[in-house]
This record gives sequence, structure tokens and C-alpha cells, in this order.
Amino acid sequence: MVTLEDARQVLLDGGQIANVTRIPLAKCLGRVLAEDVISDMDFPPFDRSPLDGYAVRMDDIKTSSRDNPAVLRQIEYLPAGACPRLTVGVGEAARIMTGAKMPGGADVVVKLEDTYSEGQQVFVHSPGRNDKNICKRGEEFRAGEVVLRKGYCVQEGTIGILAILGRDKPRVYTKPKVGILATGSELLPVSAKLQPGMIRDTNSHMLAAKVRNAGGAPVMMGQVKDDLAAMVEQLQNFSGLSVYVMTGGASVGDYDLAGRFFERLGIPILFDRVAIKPGMPVIAGRWGDSFLIALSGNPAACSVSFEVLVRPLIKRIAGFTQFEPIRIRAKMAEKFGKASPVRRFIWAVCFAIDGVIFVSPLDHQGNGMLRASEKANALLDIPANSPPLDRGNEVSAILLQRTTI
Amino acid sequence: MVTLEDARQVLLDGGQIANVTRIPLAKCLGRVLAEDVISDMDFPPFDRSPLDGYAVRMDDIKTSSRDNPAVLRQIEYLPAGACPRLTVGVGEAARIMTGAKMPGGADVVVKLEDTYSEGQQVFVHSPGRNDKNICKRGEEFRAGEVVLRKGYCVQEGTIGILAILGRDKPRVYTKPKVGILATGSELLPVSAKLQPGMIRDTNSHMLAAKVRNAGGAPVMMGQVKDDLAAMVEQLQNFSGLSVYVMTGGASVGDYDLAGRFFERLGIPILFDRVAIKPGMPVIAGRWGDSFLIALSGNPAACSVSFEVLVRPLIKRIAGFTQFEPIRIRAKMAEKFGKASPVRRFIWAVCFAIDGVIFVSPLDHQGNGMLRASEKANALLDIPANSPPLDRGNEVSAILLQRTTI
Repeated sequence: MVTLEDARQVLLDGGQIANVTRIPLAKCLGRVLAEDVISDMDFPPFDRSPLDGYAVRMDDIKTSSRDNPAVLRQIEYLPAGACPRLTVGVGEAARIMTGAKMPGGADVVVKLEDTYSEGQQVFVHSPGRNDKNICKRGEEFRAGEVVLRKGYCVQEGTIGILAILGRDKPRVYTKPKVGILATGSELLPVSAKLQPGMIRDTNSHMLAAKVRNAGGAPVMMGQVKDDLAAMVEQLQNFSGLSVYVMTGGASVGDYDLAGRFFERLGIPILFDRVAIKPGMPVIAGRWGDSFLIALSGNPAACSVSFEVLVRPLIKRIAGFTQFEPIRIRAKMAEKFGKASPVRRFIWAVCFAIDGVIFVSPLDHQGNGMLRASEKANALLDIPANSPPLDRGNEVSAILLQRTTI
Repeated sequence: MVTLEDARQVLLDGGQIANVTRIPLAKCLGRVLAEDVISDMDFPPFDRSPLDGYAVRMDDIKTSSRDNPAVLRQIEYLPAGACPRLTVGVGEAARIMTGAKMPGGADVVVKLEDTYSEGQQVFVHSPGRNDKNICKRGEEFRAGEVVLRKGYCVQEGTIGILAILGRDKPRVYTKPKVGILATGSELLPVSAKLQPGMIRDTNSHMLAAKVRNAGGAPVMMGQVKDDLAAMVEQLQNFSGLSVYVMTGGASVGDYDLAGRFFERLGIPILFDRVAIKPGMPVIAGRWGDSFLIALSGNPAACSVSFEVLVRPLIKRIAGFTQFEPIRIRAKMAEKFGKASPVRRFIWAVCFAIDGVIFVSPLDHQGNGMLRASEKANALLDIPANSPPLDRGNEVSAILLQRTTI
């Protein structure tokens, strides 16, 4: 039996970050950057106008007003994408469009609404303000600047930044392959009709979704009976994966085979059982370069172990810089009536009222209970030897990944 | 010019929810359920044991202790998946494994650790507690119960629930197709080498990522020059989509073509300009059954408009019950020095310290500024006619969707 922190550290210490590949920008959302992205240019690459108007010289308009407009002569017309050919001299103006490059000589853009024109004559009836209405070359980023860091998960806006910089095939980490094997003689495939004494396999499908959200690529290894030979054979059918997650058989009884499975394969044990509830039965070992991790067959216990141990490992291997669970402090929205002799994780909902974060334990915390784990957006983390918790008590919780906010 | 709320309502009122399809369970993560999921059975489908031990009669063991163990006779062996053939009578016990169906006659499971055995004799050295260690038939859900609701976004745990219920091909909404067209003569494709006066198209790629996260399927319509005929042609090349989002050309100048584009196509205008900053230039209309929405070409302005108007529309069409932006209250972590004559949205980072939510405006809020919008996890929403904000002021913010938490 080890502490959660020790168990997690053992896994993280052994996790080697995945390989690097290049993929099209359009597929990068949610992927992890495998390189620091350094700008090869100033951006904007030139001073440009953020609006439609006239590029002029400040000195020519600084005293202009509605009653006393500056009168200038238009010398050029600059749509977006054009290159100015002329320099704006005293008494001159260039008509300029949003996004167009500033002409030399001009130091301010007067917006169209503050002007009117007759033929080539331009009347400016508002005094400009120096350095206003010009997007300066390099104000977004500078040539040589590290704009994005390795290990960063690509967000919506990141795609925009990569596009600006011309990265049509960014380097990202490959998704680690994670095998998922459900053991249990009571398990039927999802598509099967129920039979007496049997249930459908839940955990493989839920774990596949969790692996996907952790940045891994799930490999479904199916269901096997509680039979050592069958388990060994199925594992050997799927060699070369980064992590193998088994569910079922990690507990103590005759049919809890995980321990014997590790023995049979000669897999050195990293740890056996973790001092948390639920999710105590976990056995982890190294199988060559891979991790083999056996979790409880109870869906909610299996989920807790995954959240606090396996997700961080997969995220680490997937290259995320941010791979540890995200913790928050919150106030209990209601009481939790049980004492906790061992460290306990409780499926909970976090919510905010007027800027204060509350956490509310969900009903039905039983090991087998999927519904609480499905609804939860947080795991309340209650230290060992805690008394029952009162409403208003300050607690710590781990935020869970929801597929949309 | 309309208020944001009016603009959003006009869009939402016209949004028809997408069609329904069936897809394999393995692809359902993040999809929107198109049916109420009703359980066709009690779950668990039978009383079962949550651990390895002996199924016995409470009356037989209630006074047992280490010094005075109950002595019972094992009559059956029940691995998971088995169907009990015998009923447990007085003085009898059935060896039972985790997940196995309870035999008749027994009303408690004693865990293995509280027993020892010699041949068929079983010694129980701990008194059981009534109704303990039995997962009751139907305690997770009941036959006929609505377990999941239409419009719910499938989470990791939802996959588990659907698996239990045998839903290998759930009904979900089809993803609405959203066309994305970038206009601007200064725009180059991402893969192009920079040319004087030109920049690479940012917005289409960023919008595609946003559409994807909103539950839509982006359709890239490419870049067109600031040319009315080219724009019309490109739109007509991509008929039959649910929503068309244009970027660029929604402002006021000669080259701001969106208004004339709507006119040329005879598209009735739903609204033109929204009273927010940035993101004021938005034109929306109906093109047959589709929406045509023209956003600013400035990336950050385009993003704000998308967040407050287009994302809710797409989520609505994609079938989400929760389609409105999610709001929180927070305290300003620092001051914001500008007064806000119009309603203003500020890219910001929300964070929590000891259970209290703070919001910190990001630097570089310029219209063209991508970096602030990339980093932000919230949009601070400052009402019109607000004075500068002080540290500690209570404010309202919209939470932004991040691809991982």
C-alpha cells in the first residue's frame, strides 16, 4: 500500500514523452505542441491601418475642426494588400483601407467618418492624435520571439497564431496508444442481449473516452473471462502499446486475478494498492517499456483511480506540460456525514455563487455507481482521519475534465 | 445597431435543430443526444455482491466474533457471471465473487478477510450488518426511468451509462455544417510565403476550430479578394450549409463589402451592428434556410462576436440544451483604467484563490490582437457607461471553452 502521491510520482517518473510528428494545422486543435514556436517575423509585418480612412501627417491636421477643416490632396489609394508607392508629403493624404500598409511620411490615420472629400480634395474635420490608429509593426510579436511553448495544448486561438506564422504543419506529439482490457466472466459486449447473472461491459468504453480526453489513442482489447491464460494471450495479442489499462481483477478474492497475472508475466510491481477510497485496488508494473496498470472493476472506483493516477500518466506521455490534476479550494455547500479514516474521494459538483466556489457531494457514492461519476465536475479530496464535514467547511477538490464547459 | 441580447435572440429564434443520426458508441464522446435515454431494465439487473466473500444469512452470524466464529457449510461456488442454483439455508454459505448474483436465502455478504475456511467449513469471525455488502437490483436505475436527456452532451461517464444500457448506436444530432469564408485582398493562404503588404489568413482557421468546439462541422470556403462578384460566386459554390460565417468586410469603408454583398444577394438583414466593443461590425441575415453572418476581419473582434453570437447559434442548431454563454461573477484582480461608454468585452483570465474567483484583464486588447484572445479563459463583460474599474470590483464574465481544463 502506498500513498497516492508516491504512486503518481512512480508512474510519472517512468513516463517517457511520446514521439513527434507533423500534422495539418486543421487537425491540431487539442494536440500538444512538440516544439517551441518561434516567430520568424515581426507581426504585423508592417505598420498598418486598423480602419478605413486617410493616412496623413499629424502636423497637417492637429488644429483642424468642424469649422476649420484641414484641406489635403489625395495622392494615392491603398486597398488592403497594396504596397504604397508614394510618400505622404505636407498637405497630402493617402486613402487607406483596413489592413493596408501605411505609406511613408504619414504618422496618423484619420477615420473616414471624420472626413469628407470632393474629387481629390480631402477635408479633415477632427484633429488626430499622435500614434493613434496605426497598428505598429511587431506589436503582436517580434522576430525571434518564442510565441508558444512546447507542451502547450493547442486552443482555438492557438490555431490562429500558428496560421499567422505560416505553420501549416506544426510539430506535435503522437498520441500514446493505450490498451484497454476488461476482465470478468460476467461481462457481455454492449451489443449483447442481457443474460442471467451477466452485465454489459461498461468500463472499457468509459476508459476509452477518458483516454481520448487525456490525449491518448485508446486501443480496445475487448473482454476476457476471469482466466489467467486468456488474459495473458490477449495482452500478447496487443504488443507495443505505451500503457495497458486492465479493469477488474485488482482486488483480493479468488477471481481477482490481476496479482497472479503480473506474477505469471514476470512483471515487476511498481506498487500494489493505493491508500484511497474508492480506488484502493490498483496494481502497476512495467512490462518492457510499457506500463501495465490494473484497476478495480467497479466503474466508479475504476474512474477515481484513472483520474488521480492514469490520466496524469497519459497526459505526461502525451507531452502535456500541465499533466497533474488541477486543484481548487472550495466551501462545502452541504454536509458530508461520514468520517473518513482513509483518504476519500467523493464525486461532486463545483459551482460558483457571486464569485465564491462551492462544492456539493453527489448522492450515490457507491463503488459501482456510475451516475454520480457521470454528473460530477470535481472530486472532493478528503484527507485521512477527517471527521464528518459541515456545510461551509473549506475543502480541496480536483477539477474533472468535461467535454464542454 | 441592436443590443447584444436582441441580436442573439434573433439568431436563436431562427435556429432549427439539426437532423438525427445513429453513430457507434465509440464515437459519441462530445456528441449531443437526440433522444431521452430510458432504461429498459433495472440496473444492476439483480442483487449482486460488490466484493469477494460469502453470501450468508444474517441470523447465522450476528453474534459471531473472533473468539466465537459462526461455523457454516459452503454449498455453492459463485463466480461472476454464474447463476446460483441453490438457496442458502440455515447454517449454509455460498462462496461469492465480486459482481456475482446473490443466491436466494442469503441477506448479507461477509468479506473474505473476515472469514477462513477448512474444506467445506467456513468460519465467520465478524458479525455482518444487515443489507450491507449487497448492491441491490435497480439501485443505479429502474426500468422505465429517464436516465439521460435529449440535448445532453455526452461525457466520459455518459459513455459508460450508454454501454450498461446496451446502446451501441445512440441517436445523436448531426453536426451542422458551417461554411467559413475569409474576405480580404491582403490575405494569403497559411502555406504561402509572405509578400509585401500581405498577411496570412488567420480567421478562417481559428473560426474552424471554434466551430468544431461548438459542435459544428466547419466547411472551409477559402479566401476571396475584396470583390463582390468573387464573393457571390464563392458562396454559391457551397450551397446547403446551415450557417455561413464571413470574416472581413463588415465595417464601413469602400472595401467593407459585406453590406453590399447582402444587398446583391437580396438577403434580408436580421441586424446590422451590435452595441459592443470590440465586435460591433456584425451583419446577419437569412439566405433561404441558412444564416449568413458577416464578422469583422480583425481577429480579436471576430472572436468576440463569435463567442457572444455565433457559438450560441451553432450550439443551438447542434442540439445542445445548454447553448447560452456561461456567466460567472468574479472580483477584479487588478484595475481596468478605461471608462466604457459602450458595452465592452475584455479578454481575461479567471482564477481562484482559496475558493474566491478573480478575473484579470489581459494586456493587449487591440482589435487585431490574437494573443490575449488565445490566452483568455473568460470575457469580462463591462456594461455601457461604466467608469474605470478598481481592483476588487465585482464584475460579470463569460467563461470561454478551453480544449482541456
